[in-house]
Amino acid sequence: MEKIRIGIIGYGNLGRGVEYALENTEDMVLCGVFTRRDPKSLKVRTDVPVYAIDQAANMRDKFDVMILCGGSANDLPTQTVQFARDFNVVDSFDTHAKIPEHFAAVDASSRESGKVAIISAGWDPGMFSLNRLYGQAILPNGSDYTFWGPGVSQGHSDAIRRIPGVLDARQYTIPVEAALERVRSGEQPVLTTREKHTRECYVVAEEGADLAAIENAIKTMPNYFADYDTTVHFISQEELNQNHAGIPHGGVVFRTGTTGENGKHKHVIEYRLKLDSNPEFTTGVLAACARAAFRLNQEGVSGCKTLFDIAPAYLHPADGETLRKNLL
Amino acid sequence: MEKIRIGIIGYGNLGRGVEYALENTEDMVLCGVFTRRDPKSLKVRTDVPVYAIDQAANMRDKFDVMILCGGSANDLPTQTVQFARDFNVVDSFDTHAKIPEHFAAVDASSRESGKVAIISAGWDPGMFSLNRLYGQAILPNGSDYTFWGPGVSQGHSDAIRRIPGVLDARQYTIPVEAALERVRSGEQPVLTTREKHTRECYVVAEEGADLAAIENAIKTMPNYFADYDTTVHFISQEELNQNHAGIPHGGVVFRTGTTGENGKHKHVIEYRLKLDSNPEFTTGVLAACARAAFRLNQEGVSGCKTLFDIAPAYLHPADGETLRKNLL
Repeated sequence: MEKIRIGIIGYGNLGRGVEYALENTEDMVLCGVFTRRDPKSLKVRTDVPVYAIDQAANMRDKFDVMILCGGSANDLPTQTVQFARDFNVVDSFDTHAKIPEHFAAVDASSRESGKVAIISAGWDPGMFSLNRLYGQAILPNGSDYTFWGPGVSQGHSDAIRRIPGVLDARQYTIPVEAALERVRSGEQPVLTTREKHTRECYVVAEEGADLAAIENAIKTMPNYFADYDTTVHFISQEELNQNHAGIPHGGVVFRTGTTGENGKHKHVIEYRLKLDSNPEFTTGVLAACARAAFRLNQEGVSGCKTLFDIAPAYLHPADGETLRKNLL
Repeated sequence: MEKIRIGIIGYGNLGRGVEYALENTEDMVLCGVFTRRDPKSLKVRTDVPVYAIDQAANMRDKFDVMILCGGSANDLPTQTVQFARDFNVVDSFDTHAKIPEHFAAVDASSRESGKVAIISAGWDPGMFSLNRLYGQAILPNGSDYTFWGPGVSQGHSDAIRRIPGVLDARQYTIPVEAALERVRSGEQPVLTTREKHTRECYVVAEEGADLAAIENAIKTMPNYFADYDTTVHFISQEELNQNHAGIPHGGVVFRTGTTGENGKHKHVIEYRLKLDSNPEFTTGVLAACARAAFRLNQEGVSGCKTLFDIAPAYLHPADGETLRKNLL
């Protein structure tokens, strides 16, 4: 069997994650990394070739699927649209509010090229979204809950770093155990923002900085922290480097609902992720979607898709008969 | 919008569950119940017509999808094949070892008729199977675990009832908490049958029966109990009726795996169900699959499918744009 030939666009945390992920797949092979930097200056972990990003369009016959590993704010809105003109593509676009707009732009370019583009693949958006959909479809009379963490929120960590006097910071989002238990009981509670999550901040301050002022600036920051119970710990850079270098994350999606006579039977669906590495788990989803994009395109499909549009079997390397025998 | 017209074949626990489930769906309507009994003798909860099962073939233009609510041992192997000749059908066939055979037979008859047949819809097979598939696709370097319960096992309860001196019985399958915790930690343990589940039996014995002999017969029963730590409680029929009348069930599917440099990052995916009513949850899945069967057939699809072959969006009443906006 010919292996599916994969290219990586952008070599940050996600790009490196895809490089690892493809070592665990027998049906896909990494054939190159594309970068905006000088290709000669980029050393990748494996021995695949590194190309300048603008060479890609000349290599249509060398890659079956491109996995876009850039950021949602500045890279993907243009890159996914552009690469879908020449390749099947997969991205992890995660700015929830802008997904409809991104979908429309990518759909136009991939329909024109006759390629398949899968966007917003990851865990949220991604596996969490899937579980919200399945839950609502199965238990129409019920409620949805999504909790995030325990895990590092990059956006909140960045927001703390912008405060004067702060050298470095790491912010953990933590679901409130009591809220999880109430949802798990099936009571379908209405929960405020404060009741669902707490925020824990590890901050490295400049020598002589006004710690009370920094703590106050964090705790009162609108949108990011003001609506949460927030704890601030000042630590040294060494301690931050040693104990907070990882990028763990995770969370829980619940669907709870009722059925039967006067809704007397309660049901709880709980989908929980506990991830040591947020980007490496995300790239597991991206790799599976690359397989699906290739297979769908082989069947003549084109246009923009999300995990909602992909029959699960396309994501798994085994054929239908094997899946039914072993997993159904 | 025209509603999808649903028929129920067989009016036991599942049939009644479908009848309830369709009260929570705005796009589907129950149009009739088919029974092997004399239709005049069957009183259904709602006011839909009741028909003799052999009238169905004459009512092809009155039903869009038939939901088969019979048993896997004796009803579905013939009924699903037969009804797929005239209708889109959905069943919850759950004899895991015979799924390939059932699939082949149903596929042949539904391809011939140009209809869609979705088999083995429920939670195991069904939602649990889906989570095994997604987990393997995302974390190829890992292990699967399925735990069942706490819940009533009908097959094990029946096995106890066949022992001389037993009047009635209810058997609960219970996952071992310590095993769940080991899996949740990501250590990927190898677990024996005994380490994963315990079995708890509530037994009503005839007056004067040899209780020790009954307990021994249960605990040493091959396949059913001998490989498990089993507890037997003798209780009165009244107590059984009062405290053990429900059909709760549930369980957990885990996929745990590693990624990155030397597999140093662990990931745990946990999908957990806690169900007050096993049949009513199953019928929630059946109803969603009926929607998918109808929509797929409208697009010209035919043949046998499982949840593995169905893009999730087909199961949910909302359109793609709404799903992306609200759930992705």
